[in-house]
Amino acid sequence: MFPQYDVIVVGAGHAGCEAAAAAANMGSKVMLVTMNMNTIAQMSCNPAMGGVAKGQIVREIDALGGYSGIISDKSMIQFRMLNKSKGPAMWSPRTQNDRMRFAEEWRLALEKTPNVDFWQEMVSGLVIKNNRVVGVKTSMGIEIMGKSVVLTNGTFLNGIIHIGEKRFGGGRTGEKAATGITEQLVELGFEAGRMKTGTPPRVDGRSLNWKVMEEQPGDEIPGKFSFTDTKPLANQRPCHITYTNADVHEILKTGFEKSPMFTGRIKGLGPRYCPSIEDKINRFAERERHQIFVEPEGWDTVEIYVNGFSTSLPEDVQYKAITKIPGFENVKMFRPGYAIEYDYFPPTQLESTLETKLIDNLYFAGQINGTTGYEEAASQGLMAGINAHNKVHEKDPFILGRSEAYIGVLIDDLINKGTDEPYRMFTSRAEFRILLRQDNADVRLTAIGHELGLASQDRLDKVNQKIDETNHLIKQLGKIKVKPEEINGKLSEINSATIKEKTPLINFLRRPELDIQEIVTFHSDAIKITKDLSPEILEQASILVKYETYIEKEKSLADQMGNLDNKKIPDDFNYRGIPALSAEAKEKLSNIKPTNLGQASRISGVNPADISVLMVYMAR
Amino acid sequence: MFPQYDVIVVGAGHAGCEAAAAAANMGSKVMLVTMNMNTIAQMSCNPAMGGVAKGQIVREIDALGGYSGIISDKSMIQFRMLNKSKGPAMWSPRTQNDRMRFAEEWRLALEKTPNVDFWQEMVSGLVIKNNRVVGVKTSMGIEIMGKSVVLTNGTFLNGIIHIGEKRFGGGRTGEKAATGITEQLVELGFEAGRMKTGTPPRVDGRSLNWKVMEEQPGDEIPGKFSFTDTKPLANQRPCHITYTNADVHEILKTGFEKSPMFTGRIKGLGPRYCPSIEDKINRFAERERHQIFVEPEGWDTVEIYVNGFSTSLPEDVQYKAITKIPGFENVKMFRPGYAIEYDYFPPTQLESTLETKLIDNLYFAGQINGTTGYEEAASQGLMAGINAHNKVHEKDPFILGRSEAYIGVLIDDLINKGTDEPYRMFTSRAEFRILLRQDNADVRLTAIGHELGLASQDRLDKVNQKIDETNHLIKQLGKIKVKPEEINGKLSEINSATIKEKTPLINFLRRPELDIQEIVTFHSDAIKITKDLSPEILEQASILVKYETYIEKEKSLADQMGNLDNKKIPDDFNYRGIPALSAEAKEKLSNIKPTNLGQASRISGVNPADISVLMVYMAR
Repeated sequence: MFPQYDVIVVGAGHAGCEAAAAAANMGSKVMLVTMNMNTIAQMSCNPAMGGVAKGQIVREIDALGGYSGIISDKSMIQFRMLNKSKGPAMWSPRTQNDRMRFAEEWRLALEKTPNVDFWQEMVSGLVIKNNRVVGVKTSMGIEIMGKSVVLTNGTFLNGIIHIGEKRFGGGRTGEKAATGITEQLVELGFEAGRMKTGTPPRVDGRSLNWKVMEEQPGDEIPGKFSFTDTKPLANQRPCHITYTNADVHEILKTGFEKSPMFTGRIKGLGPRYCPSIEDKINRFAERERHQIFVEPEGWDTVEIYVNGFSTSLPEDVQYKAITKIPGFENVKMFRPGYAIEYDYFPPTQLESTLETKLIDNLYFAGQINGTTGYEEAASQGLMAGINAHNKVHEKDPFILGRSEAYIGVLIDDLINKGTDEPYRMFTSRAEFRILLRQDNADVRLTAIGHELGLASQDRLDKVNQKIDETNHLIKQLGKIKVKPEEINGKLSEINSATIKEKTPLINFLRRPELDIQEIVTFHSDAIKITKDLSPEILEQASILVKYETYIEKEKSLADQMGNLDNKKIPDDFNYRGIPALSAEAKEKLSNIKPTNLGQASRISGVNPADISVLMVYMAR
Repeated sequence: MFPQYDVIVVGAGHAGCEAAAAAANMGSKVMLVTMNMNTIAQMSCNPAMGGVAKGQIVREIDALGGYSGIISDKSMIQFRMLNKSKGPAMWSPRTQNDRMRFAEEWRLALEKTPNVDFWQEMVSGLVIKNNRVVGVKTSMGIEIMGKSVVLTNGTFLNGIIHIGEKRFGGGRTGEKAATGITEQLVELGFEAGRMKTGTPPRVDGRSLNWKVMEEQPGDEIPGKFSFTDTKPLANQRPCHITYTNADVHEILKTGFEKSPMFTGRIKGLGPRYCPSIEDKINRFAERERHQIFVEPEGWDTVEIYVNGFSTSLPEDVQYKAITKIPGFENVKMFRPGYAIEYDYFPPTQLESTLETKLIDNLYFAGQINGTTGYEEAASQGLMAGINAHNKVHEKDPFILGRSEAYIGVLIDDLINKGTDEPYRMFTSRAEFRILLRQDNADVRLTAIGHELGLASQDRLDKVNQKIDETNHLIKQLGKIKVKPEEINGKLSEINSATIKEKTPLINFLRRPELDIQEIVTFHSDAIKITKDLSPEILEQASILVKYETYIEKEKSLADQMGNLDNKKIPDDFNYRGIPALSAEAKEKLSNIKPTNLGQASRISGVNPADISVLMVYMAR
């Protein structure tokens, strides 16, 4: 019934979709197995993509040739660049999306991708031969054979939904859980754990009083994620902001004794930085209110996502409490919030390719690795898809460094440090965040994506042109000089220090209070050379000049780290035979088996002294 | 958490959606409970609306003010008027639809309907007090109170999916079954049964060889369902036709011993006129091939519905067989066909309002009544929604007669004759089918819909204008006469008999070989009065004149039947006390308790002699 596939992807969420698309676009024969073709790329939780650090990841996926940026652009109803008042390392694009459109665009994109086949059914097990995965078994008993398998099961593995004291099996509300895979993997020697995540109630926008809420419109000049020719929005739909208050909190507290979080019925840990409202009230008892983002689920639907009000309290408590939020007095709920517990596999069991250490050609991506977030999942899917293809075609593993991409940071953190609570990306997790900006994701990664066969020549040409134009502009700004008498009047006017001698324009650009649009007006030559340049080039040049010192510093740190990364550790290295290593280091290093010194240095519990010892031993 | 509703609708398929919309538009506070808001108005089986007799029903729903016609128009990808070569009683509009768009348009339409609230959860029971339903219980244990309840559970009640020897619980593939309701109703004294339906495999359009199939385009001048201002299509997507053959049949036969249909594992009867391919091969062993319609599932998707190949044979047999169909040699399946068994309640347990006889204010609509088909379901939903509203607001029941609408025929058949196999509408079920045409559904029903508060004044005005213009045109055609010398030349030319004296144009219209467009050219006055008339008016006039005799005959029959319908039978009429009645009639009449003689006459097992006896008794 089926040919032998190169890559079988199990699950069609953000991770599975990217994995399937990437492997197929690289030339693999791909089978995407999903329990329901109607729910491909469902946004199970909030109808949004990107945000702090996550927006950077979406742009990285896009630069590498993944689909998430394009799909997000096609389905967005609002665009905002977050943190625009902070330094460019913090700028983070974020879209609100039409949930139905997002799913539809993903499905159509996959359908248009040659080499992606589909099968609608639950996968209940793997076919394994000599420690290598060779296929999957479905609930119907069919075997689909493939040279590699990417598992992206999301919250479906033995999923249990909690609302107050009630519990139901399910992978999402209204959908079945998946069984069989965890049990088999545990039998094979994998360690499995439980995690928890949650979602807020959905409500009827017609029942809200919008007037008492604060409108949060999209950016005046909206951007987009993708470096391709997707279109920015002409019209946008606003979100709204409101707040909880003491009344809301008091009512919620009446449900605490029935909360599955507090009574211990939920064993898995939830996402620390996306806590439930009951968690927030509990942990930040001093705070009188919490912000609620009231987000539309699409262009036309009246369904509203109550961002910030994730909860698994009893539904009547949810309802009573939510009616006390300004604007929600007459709210009608479509469904209550809930918590969901699901199986994950501590990601220290993975190679940096996301291949499992125990079973060859088996890859894990997304929530199964203990992460949370669409973007984190999508990027892992992309990497797993690429690596599954590479392995099957006997090509080198594809690994991104911590100074190359947030995706590199993510995977490096996961496989070395593991995680016992849902892992979410932050800019603070990246040592080199001034390098890993959203604006230069194309500069960083398009060439790599092109080499992989994912990003087109056209995209590469475009990026190279961007690099050339930026460098040329910076050079010119260093050459064009203005005399004090030409400019001092203007400088005084705008409260910037006057100059005493002929000064190149680039020097002004280093001043925080001056922006490049202003500076180019200082000299007619500058006006001339910039008049045909895109705003993007001006911005690039500006960032590179203004943040030159930081960028250079991080680059040199990255180089040092890169040196450690280049120091390979043999597979069979015997840590236990080195008395000078700390006991903890011996244990962790023996378990994780880092492939190089850089990776070893990032394992929690391995300290710099241990690394020095290793360097000495390895030099021998 | 919830107010008390006027009408609670359980299930959001075709029946539930129409019920909710109708009751809400009439002014009821409506709660629509669905297991999954993402699957509202899913086309679970074929991506098409209408067809023979069913297209008439869609137009009737539209004329009454229901939504199915409008939604079908908005989501259609192809329109065909079937049977255009036959008499106008047989003309039947049919659309292919974009499955995703259809569901989305329904959801948005309901969201825009004031008074419709939504709740996403499984209903697991009814709240009943003194034989009256007063609410529903959900799986979470919530009680939602309402003055009436419409159950539209489709195939979800204890649904079991069969593929070969494999069985799974489920309401549709990938979706949970619903439990609890049947058990409770049976305990309350309802009779329940099992029915079966099936669906074909879905396949990847990219894997088909279209060149060897016969293209089936839409109509050259496409029409539409709705009498409102929805737009006909500018572009259409074609279907294709191919055929099974001896090879296909031989392979299918190898699966017969594992067929749940033939081994007796499936107890419920399936739809006779929409049989599985194995049934067709079995029952029509002499036929060498069966037609397969290859239908796209939407504008852009590659998913294809293999109409005519419904099957529950083992999936590997399905696959092997389907590859032998011309054009399907390299087919890739997305999912196999399957059969589904589900609970239904023999509809003789219903009043003609679709209210149950046992429990007050409880209504059933759709597959729960043993019907099959989207249109049959939608029309029952509409009627149940209207009647639930009327009952709650102490208004008269709303019943359509057999000579008023196919909907009347449908419900009258169901409640009087019952059904032990899925009931599908046919033109042959209607005694007055020349009256129940698709072209005059608006003439028949708009005034009624308007009186109900569903069809707008604007729609009524439009229909009245159509009626006036038609009548005026017919009158004029009777007045305008042509002389032999003016017309005989032309008549000879077109092989129509010449005339001997001055003849009114209407006489020519009665000739089968002449159509109205031609006849109006016979006289300059006729050209003048018709030049501003729509083609629709010309068609109306033409049908009324050409089929006048048939129409009059059926009208007079309908009147006679109407007289019987007006002869009310008291609720407490004691049939068993009338010795002259046949034993079967006594039993059936006592069980079904017809409300009038007409209904009594249509009960299977009650013969004309019994009716005469009853007339005698009632005259006393």
